[in-house]
Amino acid sequence: TGPPGFVALDCETVLDYAASRHNVASVLGGASTRNSWSAQEVGDGNINFVYIVTGASADKQVIVKQGLPFVRCVGESWPLTQERVRYEAEALVQAHKFCPSHVPEVYVYDTKMATIVMRYLEPPHIILRGGIIEGKVYPKLAEHVGEYMATTLYKSSALALGGAELRRARQAFGQNEDMCELTEQVIFTEPYGKADNNHWTSPQLDDIVSEIQSDASLKRAICSLKEKFMTNAQALLHGDLHTGSLMCTETTTFAIDHEFAFYGPMGFDIGAFLANLLLAFYSQSGWAKCNGEDRSKQRDWLLETFTETWSVFERRFLEQWNEQGVRCDCGGLSPQIMFGKEVPEALQSYQRSFMQKVWVDSLGFAGAKMIRRIIGIAHVADLDKIPDAEIRAQCERKALKCGRELMLNASALTPLSVVEMILACEQ
Amino acid sequence: TGPPGFVALDCETVLDYAASRHNVASVLGGASTRNSWSAQEVGDGNINFVYIVTGASADKQVIVKQGLPFVRCVGESWPLTQERVRYEAEALVQAHKFCPSHVPEVYVYDTKMATIVMRYLEPPHIILRGGIIEGKVYPKLAEHVGEYMATTLYKSSALALGGAELRRARQAFGQNEDMCELTEQVIFTEPYGKADNNHWTSPQLDDIVSEIQSDASLKRAICSLKEKFMTNAQALLHGDLHTGSLMCTETTTFAIDHEFAFYGPMGFDIGAFLANLLLAFYSQSGWAKCNGEDRSKQRDWLLETFTETWSVFERRFLEQWNEQGVRCDCGGLSPQIMFGKEVPEALQSYQRSFMQKVWVDSLGFAGAKMIRRIIGIAHVADLDKIPDAEIRAQCERKALKCGRELMLNASALTPLSVVEMILACEQ
Ligand SMILES: Nc1ncnc2c1ncn2[C@@H]1O[C@H](COP(=O)(O)OP(=O)(O)O)[C@@H](O)[C@H]1O
Ligand SMILES: Nc1ncnc2c1ncn2[C@@H]1O[C@H](COP(=O)(O)OP(=O)(O)O)[C@@H](O)[C@H]1O
Ligand SMILES: [Mg+2]
Ligand SMILES: [Mg+2]
Ligand SMILES: [Mg+2]
Ligand SMILES: [Mg+2]
Ligand SMILES: [Mg+2]
Repeated sequence: TGPPGFVALDCETVLDYAASRHNVASVLGGASTRNSWSAQEVGDGNINFVYIVTGASADKQVIVKQGLPFVRCVGESWPLTQERVRYEAEALVQAHKFCPSHVPEVYVYDTKMATIVMRYLEPPHIILRGGIIEGKVYPKLAEHVGEYMATTLYKSSALALGGAELRRARQAFGQNEDMCELTEQVIFTEPYGKADNNHWTSPQLDDIVSEIQSDASLKRAICSLKEKFMTNAQALLHGDLHTGSLMCTETTTFAIDHEFAFYGPMGFDIGAFLANLLLAFYSQSGWAKCNGEDRSKQRDWLLETFTETWSVFERRFLEQWNEQGVRCDCGGLSPQIMFGKEVPEALQSYQRSFMQKVWVDSLGFAGAKMIRRIIGIAHVADLDKIPDAEIRAQCERKALKCGRELMLNASALTPLSVVEMILACEQ
Repeated sequence: TGPPGFVALDCETVLDYAASRHNVASVLGGASTRNSWSAQEVGDGNINFVYIVTGASADKQVIVKQGLPFVRCVGESWPLTQERVRYEAEALVQAHKFCPSHVPEVYVYDTKMATIVMRYLEPPHIILRGGIIEGKVYPKLAEHVGEYMATTLYKSSALALGGAELRRARQAFGQNEDMCELTEQVIFTEPYGKADNNHWTSPQLDDIVSEIQSDASLKRAICSLKEKFMTNAQALLHGDLHTGSLMCTETTTFAIDHEFAFYGPMGFDIGAFLANLLLAFYSQSGWAKCNGEDRSKQRDWLLETFTETWSVFERRFLEQWNEQGVRCDCGGLSPQIMFGKEVPEALQSYQRSFMQKVWVDSLGFAGAKMIRRIIGIAHVADLDKIPDAEIRAQCERKALKCGRELMLNASALTPLSVVEMILACEQ
């Protein structure tokens, strides 16, 4: 299967493949050292194959990621076009250009082979979700993710680009058809009705799931969010920015796995990250009870990171906006003829209303992402791996309540009152 | 100038052109009757050339519309790509398919010649704006325009198509680069600052124009609307649905001139039409005073048409939604697994919130369109042609006040209270 010229790689053929691409081979120590190379498949994701290729010495490594024409964890019975690899590659390249400290460099994108070769994020980088589950804290996380989101979202938006450039970029990028469709199904539809893919800790959560699935106001809220997802082409998003798409050390943070990238509402990325912080937050008492661990320090850090991420995002977004300043043409959202040469009160007033809308969107999408991770097709290990079902269900119930609040009352919540609400759901 | 193979037509060569296209020739009585044909250029628009070609008998006629690579009323010094003709042709064809009673049939779209040949809307069809200025009333107008908008906007939206189909349609259609840029300039930017293109009845309006151009809340409102215009790809719009883009008799109504068509927010089309009704409404007392005409009947009709258009639009939009019913897949906004087989209370609640957002958008865009037609580059004859500057300025001031209210307070206005506000501005 796959298009002409496509061959699925394995741990042996990936070495020849790496040797055949000049700039990959040179990262690995040169093609002449090929015989000393080795590869390991580490794809822990559900969808693709990921190889770590180690070259002439232990510090010469690259990642080779290949997308097959089907969903990895299901097999050929769930086909998925390899177009997603182009979207991932283009989004990675653009995000690296905008924010090189938080996105790995791409060495090669190969359409025919549906393969991306990129920088290997060396140990001690690990997937953030794993670190959090182990009880680690990442003091720089809010600063880094806030910066990553502010930069990638601002720079790909109408604010930075103006209408004309935004339209060109959107048209050239395309629509990421398959991945958007998948999102519409698993986030915005199935959790709110009877679907074979749904599952939850049962019977403990049956009552609240049934409430959620029969709540007219929640259905209205999820449909509004779904329409926003479908129609609001505001910026080039990561599209799947959960804690499994971030690789961290205590001092560094990288976003990977942009295969769901599309032009959509900024709040969808922000909400994804915030939701995953909250899912981890509500899992704390579960891990504490099951393993007898003291999670209080991590608990505080997670809540602080929630608040701090938004505040870094907002500050850095506005800093970039103010730095760019007013535009001389009519294309942008800060034209000089309207606002004068400086950034005056009038522009500040628009900036506040802009950020407020992004805030409301972010909370709404966060709520939707929390709910789907507890009752939809794909759960998160933070909660799912809590061994005791009773204890797990208690955590999940709190998270469901919080998710519901976020979806229904986003526009009434402030950065202060949302924390109160989060804590109230924990009781 | 123009691309290879492009020739600008004139009243002579347009006959040979018509004869050379089989299905055009046959509407005109067959190519063999070519010697009895004649043509007349009637383009009263600012941008393109429009020929009425009359064939073998007076009832055999077609319209040939050609777009030159520049703006007609300015000349080669304002270049404009001919891509707009493709957008116009595709939007016309789609709108005719969706709503054949209110859109002329296209016989030929010729890329190379940047030409559209379409049905001639025979007398007594005239441009609606002209009819209104003459004092005519059109009893079917609200019903027809409400139906046209409900049908074209519903059928090209995520509601009718689902996300996947909407994304395909959007990508295939493209972005109508030039025309969207023009709109951003003349509607969403220039009127709110000092721009050479701006002009108004001066000195009478100088005070209110200066208020408008220094009002921070209005700048915030126009920037929010501009961002919505740039990013909210909700449905395939006409893009320029003012009373100069409608041709009517007492019993028929057709939308023409889709060259600004793009995927945008539904409220932008609805607002354009509502704004032009209100501009006519506020011109009434001016015409009455200047010409001693009794305009009271037309005045009532315009206000009724304003109200009635929204109510027809809303009813017909929801009828189509309910008729289509729930979807078996996850692609749309009314999935069966979420709402059940019928259209229950939960879906109705979402429908109400959807229509409320379209309403608010429509009023906001209407306000912006009113303001730009009085202080921006392109005015409307309804007001502009009132001969006495004092009297004209009185009308324009009322319209500016109303436009400002609509932009600032859209979300607080209901179909009832908006009428009170419109009347209050008239005092
Ligand atoms: N650049 C990288 N450096 C180090 N490890 C990586 C890198 N990219 C991916 N990985 C590893 O491979 C796993 C799967 O990669 P990912 O891009 O998330 O694939 P999928 O699309 O299948 O989810 C990641 O969880 C991570 O462990
Ligand atoms: N299908 C038609 N039937 C009759 N008259 C038409 C038709 N299309 C255009 N016209 C006439 O030509 C004029 C200009 O057409 P329009 O499409 O508005 O061109 P422009 O894009 O230059 O504004 C209209 O105002 C109308 O008088
Ligand atoms: Mg992944
Ligand atoms: Mg992935
Ligand atoms: Mg589970
Ligand atoms: Mg016209
Ligand atoms: Mg036109």
